[in-house]
Amino acid sequence: MTASGLERALGHVFGDQTLFQTALTHRSFGAVHNERLEFLGDAVLNAVIAHCLFERFPDLPEGDLSRLRAQLVRQDSLHRHALQLSLGAFLRLGEGEQRSGGQNRPSILADALEALFGAVWLDAGFAVVSQVISRLFSPALGEIAPGEAIKDAKTRLQEYLQGNRLALPLYALTGSEGEAHAQTFTVSCNVPALKLCTQGSGPSRRAAEQAAAERALVRLGLQ
Amino acid sequence: MTASGLERALGHVFGDQTLFQTALTHRSFGAVHNERLEFLGDAVLNAVIAHCLFERFPDLPEGDLSRLRAQLVRQDSLHRHALQLSLGAFLRLGEGEQRSGGQNRPSILADALEALFGAVWLDAGFAVVSQVISRLFSPALGEIAPGEAIKDAKTRLQEYLQGNRLALPLYALTGSEGEAHAQTFTVSCNVPALKLCTQGSGPSRRAAEQAAAERALVRLGLQ
Repeated sequence: MTASGLERALGHVFGDQTLFQTALTHRSFGAVHNERLEFLGDAVLNAVIAHCLFERFPDLPEGDLSRLRAQLVRQDSLHRHALQLSLGAFLRLGEGEQRSGGQNRPSILADALEALFGAVWLDAGFAVVSQVISRLFSPALGEIAPGEAIKDAKTRLQEYLQGNRLALPLYALTGSEGEAHAQTFTVSCNVPALKLCTQGSGPSRRAAEQAAAERALVRLGLQ
Repeated sequence: MTASGLERALGHVFGDQTLFQTALTHRSFGAVHNERLEFLGDAVLNAVIAHCLFERFPDLPEGDLSRLRAQLVRQDSLHRHALQLSLGAFLRLGEGEQRSGGQNRPSILADALEALFGAVWLDAGFAVVSQVISRLFSPALGEIAPGEAIKDAKTRLQEYLQGNRLALPLYALTGSEGEAHAQTFTVSCNVPALKLCTQGSGPSRRAAEQAAAERALVRLGLQ
């Protein structure tokens, strides 16, 4: 697979090959690297996936769409896509990173994939990057069974802890503000066994607990 | 100012007026409301602002771009834009919300503005919503003095706490993983006076502290 093989797999041939190279260049390689493009790519990826989910699931509320998107764009999912594209073979890494296997590191691969999305956006515009992303994510989008995927955060956190024989989280109200009619509650979620402490806010105590549990899932890399 | 006055202020006249109405409809009003559009609008807003910042500040690293974006799209900034557009006058709220002044609530106004962006995206495509957003944010983008705006998170947190005569945060290493060459550190940031406890991770202890401080700033609504 040559570099243009990667372009074929992505579905876009770069007009500006420098952009393409920059997207594949890790910070360890030199002064010009892919972190700014990654910022751009992350943004466009989130927008495109939001749009796909919005269209595909006309009945799902916002919270579920948001949760599904988080699943689709989290590091391990991007890592899988990067492996599919054999992205590792095209990365430019500093010597140290190379020796320690940086081309296989999930975070480096996921970041480079996002950087590629950013580079496609700059190179060819939104319509093209939107197509590239939709095509790549189409199988994953097709596999979503929303009913199944959407257990609430407290349930998922509880199941995870039980599965690891750890004590259940402790939720505690830490604050509330606003008038009776429009209060905002803040709740902490404590998982002592994992030294994990998160907070969440919401219009009800239950919503705040869910928000705190969701943050705990994010910290645990489960969201 | 009529509804079409709002469209003029936004710079887009809706082909699909239902979409326009839905964007202005708060959850308290009825079953069809603007929360899904808000999800979409938040995503496109983040993407467009990312693009604007990327182009305008070719020398800023990713972390600074990300921080600037957070400042531009946080609730109080969206609230200001909504006030500028007199958005409150066009909102459709349930009776209870109306009586308690929902049309002036920053979160409701900010959410409706995001929903409008989502609706413009659906109504007219990315190029148009990108123009609407860029035009609206152009003064705010013009005011950015990146050197000034970008104090690091620990400094800003410290200054905030000192300004409120509160004890300084306590940072503690709570974990590290990975080989010596590519370790990830996790640090907690504790502000006992505010019952605030956040964590952050990064490739160095210092980076992890910054990440934890940044989350504390987010919780405090300062980021």
